[in-house]
Amino acid sequence: MMQSYTAAELATILDAQLEGNPEARIEGIATLENAGAEHLAFLHSGRYQSQLKSCKAGAVLVKEEFAAEVSGTALIVADPYLAYAAASVLFDRALESKPGIGPGAVIDSTATVARSAVVGANAVIGSNTVVADGVRIGANTVIGNNCMVGEKTRLAANVSVYDGVRIGKQCVIHSAAVIGADGFGFANDGGCWVKIHQLGGVAIGDRVEIGAGTTIDRGALDDTCIGDGVILDNQIQIAHNVTIGENTAIAACAAIAGSTRIGKQCTIAGACGIAGHLSIVDGTHITAMSMITKSITEAGAYSSGTIMEPHKQWKRNAVRFRQLDDMARRIKELETIIKQNTEGQSES
Amino acid sequence: MMQSYTAAELATILDAQLEGNPEARIEGIATLENAGAEHLAFLHSGRYQSQLKSCKAGAVLVKEEFAAEVSGTALIVADPYLAYAAASVLFDRALESKPGIGPGAVIDSTATVARSAVVGANAVIGSNTVVADGVRIGANTVIGNNCMVGEKTRLAANVSVYDGVRIGKQCVIHSAAVIGADGFGFANDGGCWVKIHQLGGVAIGDRVEIGAGTTIDRGALDDTCIGDGVILDNQIQIAHNVTIGENTAIAACAAIAGSTRIGKQCTIAGACGIAGHLSIVDGTHITAMSMITKSITEAGAYSSGTIMEPHKQWKRNAVRFRQLDDMARRIKELETIIKQNTEGQSES
Amino acid sequence: MMQSYTAAELATILDAQLEGNPEARIEGIATLENAGAEHLAFLHSGRYQSQLKSCKAGAVLVKEEFAAEVSGTALIVADPYLAYAAASVLFDRALESKPGIGPGAVIDSTATVARSAVVGANAVIGSNTVVADGVRIGANTVIGNNCMVGEKTRLAANVSVYDGVRIGKQCVIHSAAVIGADGFGFANDGGCWVKIHQLGGVAIGDRVEIGAGTTIDRGALDDTCIGDGVILDNQIQIAHNVTIGENTAIAACAAIAGSTRIGKQCTIAGACGIAGHLSIVDGTHITAMSMITKSITEAGAYSSGTIMEPHKQWKRNAVRFRQLDDMARRIKELETIIKQNTEGQSES
Repeated sequence: MMQSYTAAELATILDAQLEGNPEARIEGIATLENAGAEHLAFLHSGRYQSQLKSCKAGAVLVKEEFAAEVSGTALIVADPYLAYAAASVLFDRALESKPGIGPGAVIDSTATVARSAVVGANAVIGSNTVVADGVRIGANTVIGNNCMVGEKTRLAANVSVYDGVRIGKQCVIHSAAVIGADGFGFANDGGCWVKIHQLGGVAIGDRVEIGAGTTIDRGALDDTCIGDGVILDNQIQIAHNVTIGENTAIAACAAIAGSTRIGKQCTIAGACGIAGHLSIVDGTHITAMSMITKSITEAGAYSSGTIMEPHKQWKRNAVRFRQLDDMARRIKELETIIKQNTEGQSES
Repeated sequence: MMQSYTAAELATILDAQLEGNPEARIEGIATLENAGAEHLAFLHSGRYQSQLKSCKAGAVLVKEEFAAEVSGTALIVADPYLAYAAASVLFDRALESKPGIGPGAVIDSTATVARSAVVGANAVIGSNTVVADGVRIGANTVIGNNCMVGEKTRLAANVSVYDGVRIGKQCVIHSAAVIGADGFGFANDGGCWVKIHQLGGVAIGDRVEIGAGTTIDRGALDDTCIGDGVILDNQIQIAHNVTIGENTAIAACAAIAGSTRIGKQCTIAGACGIAGHLSIVDGTHITAMSMITKSITEAGAYSSGTIMEPHKQWKRNAVRFRQLDDMARRIKELETIIKQNTEGQSES
Repeated sequence: MMQSYTAAELATILDAQLEGNPEARIEGIATLENAGAEHLAFLHSGRYQSQLKSCKAGAVLVKEEFAAEVSGTALIVADPYLAYAAASVLFDRALESKPGIGPGAVIDSTATVARSAVVGANAVIGSNTVVADGVRIGANTVIGNNCMVGEKTRLAANVSVYDGVRIGKQCVIHSAAVIGADGFGFANDGGCWVKIHQLGGVAIGDRVEIGAGTTIDRGALDDTCIGDGVILDNQIQIAHNVTIGENTAIAACAAIAGSTRIGKQCTIAGACGIAGHLSIVDGTHITAMSMITKSITEAGAYSSGTIMEPHKQWKRNAVRFRQLDDMARRIKELETIIKQNTEGQSES
């Protein structure tokens, strides 16, 4: 069953001003370039303005300044990208699922699962775990003992949640994510590693998104904490006792080492590494593949690494990197000699 | 039941010229060093030529030029490494499995599963999904609704395939891989992130290999596309709307950000990061751990990063990196002074 | 059922000297800062010495030199951090589970599962696989055919173990880990990739820890080998035919390419990349995010990369990196001119 809306209905939902045909029937969203009469499109950047005229979309989300250029129906909003986000949920078929317990699901007799929840086939839910209203749990997902999953949170297929993990409301957790595995804690006993059993938990706030394959370890003694509104992309590693502040966004493959505290409203780009026991202030932005080994106390953008170049050229430069300290000394020496010579000359 | 072949049978299968005992019975493959009478070995590089004489293999794949040095039976081929690849399939016991539906598997009544397919224990297959002839689906693997899995494609255990994913023929997808999770798309509303529901799908060509733990996100509106013959190692991240051209190979832990287009016949080494919205031309080679932040329009090899050195030395150099711009200016200054001095001298 | 111990019992178990109340009842472990009367705390670093006085812990693990400062009960040991590790196992509730086969588990009739083993709900165990005494297998975990899982080894939920994998005793393998997927081996046939079926296995020693999402590929012909006592954090990639020596520790997101041999007692920090076919000597330490492209023959610490700085500054320096070779030549030239000038002057 395909969901559809008239342009007028969308205008109401998205708080938009309609110019054109209120009866235009919209069944999905497409780019300006690919949209047909059944699609909603949007112009979020002046860069694509030239596509407006040839666009065949049934309706287009635009700012007022571009409304006149829309050949079909315009839905005028202050922020078309935000309106597109709001519209996207209307056409997400992944959200269609009937409440109930799937075949083969194994739910411990001491667990509490709301009637309005969906539990996928072959999912497993442990003892004393509470699954709140409107929660959807994917097939083959495993939730341990003594967990809490808040209202309307969705877990995809094959998610692993260990014992003692608290997850807030309206979160999304993708497949192969692992929440609450042991932190990497070991004591060294004459060359051999002795495991420090990880006795803390994980506390995840509301409206948190956790990408596919992302791992969030449980704390050693206290909890690992992910604040409200944090968004984590795929294959991110969050070590034990990390704290991440509200609304911070972390892109794929970043890794945060143990006990580091990341502030609110930070953006951490892909494949960054952040060392352990650091403190990163609110509003910090870290560019892709940077290595952060010291605390950041001043908001701003930070980077490390070098910029790509043709391999042959790079090799010559990379070899010189290992002579950098020597080069710096030699520049200093040259400056000293020049200064002496110049002084000598001026004296003579 | 161990599969075995005579040297003569292998010669026929591998289109090789046999010199030696056609009745030699081969039950597996081993290196020149470790092979016994029951093994096929191969010489693919002159580097190992010296091992030929002492090699005890029942048969050896060699180029014509080395045939005389084989003490046992030689199988002469143009490309011994390629012949080894062709032979390897003969001895892969993972390919032995009987058609049928395993215990605990949950297949939606609207799904179509070919009789020749293998569905592992506790696997889950969603509504309207089509599983073609000769497909093998591992235990506990989950395939969503409205998916297509092409002929002879193999999915290992614990794979997650979301709704609306099309997978071609003869692909291999390894455990913990996730195909079709949401792309990382969010609009910012005054500091809070608003999810952009990801309405596109994933289209995977034929003969694609996808490694363990690799994640390929669904497109925001259009599909994420992986071309025919692409090979992806483990723990690779492919973001939404990425396009990868035919026969491109990507090594482990590489990450490709959203909407980037990678050409055909590229090789991308391990742990590279490629930024979003770039275009990488056919035949590009990127060396390990490089960061690519600009489009590449000319085929060739590209790199970034620095080369390892003892830590103490590295630290001295790395500190100087942060003075590089200053160093460059000082060199320029020295050159100017020297030039002035020299001109001054020649004038005087 | 909460496990609890008296201070006197802990003193016996941990081989500690008790000063204070032997009847103090301990139900868990906490930091000096957060501990209450029911907690054991520990002082492992002089840095936290000042917290001793205000600490409310029921008992504190300390070195003799700090015992006098403990306001409550002191447990005096030589190495408080090691004693904490030893104590941590006493309070790990994840270790409580009753032997038996969970609902929905599918065990091949030719597999051998010890009576003292725990097999989680919906787990799948293949043909001829042996599961030894005291093994715990998590829900939805899949173990292939012809595997061996040694005594007291624990596999968490959703682990994937392919065919022919041998795992030693007392190992811990976390969720979404994949052991024995195909190595990334392909021969190139005129631009197309031909799969080299991976016929080797994986051999994992005793007391090995494998983190969540970590992948260890099977060997091409011989086995991939992980030595006794090796500890691997989350999301590590170990390619085919890698060998890792005893008691080596590897932090999250590191990647080791094919056929590389890593020695004993090495520490490899997070997100490092090690190229293929290298040999890394015993006792090597590699700092975070380093790229290792040559064998290391001398024990010590090694690094690569650059250090973070504010983005604007970094950009200026990174641009200069691409002029490094040129800068080096210009320094050399300046030195030559200066030398000539100086010699010219001294001659004149």
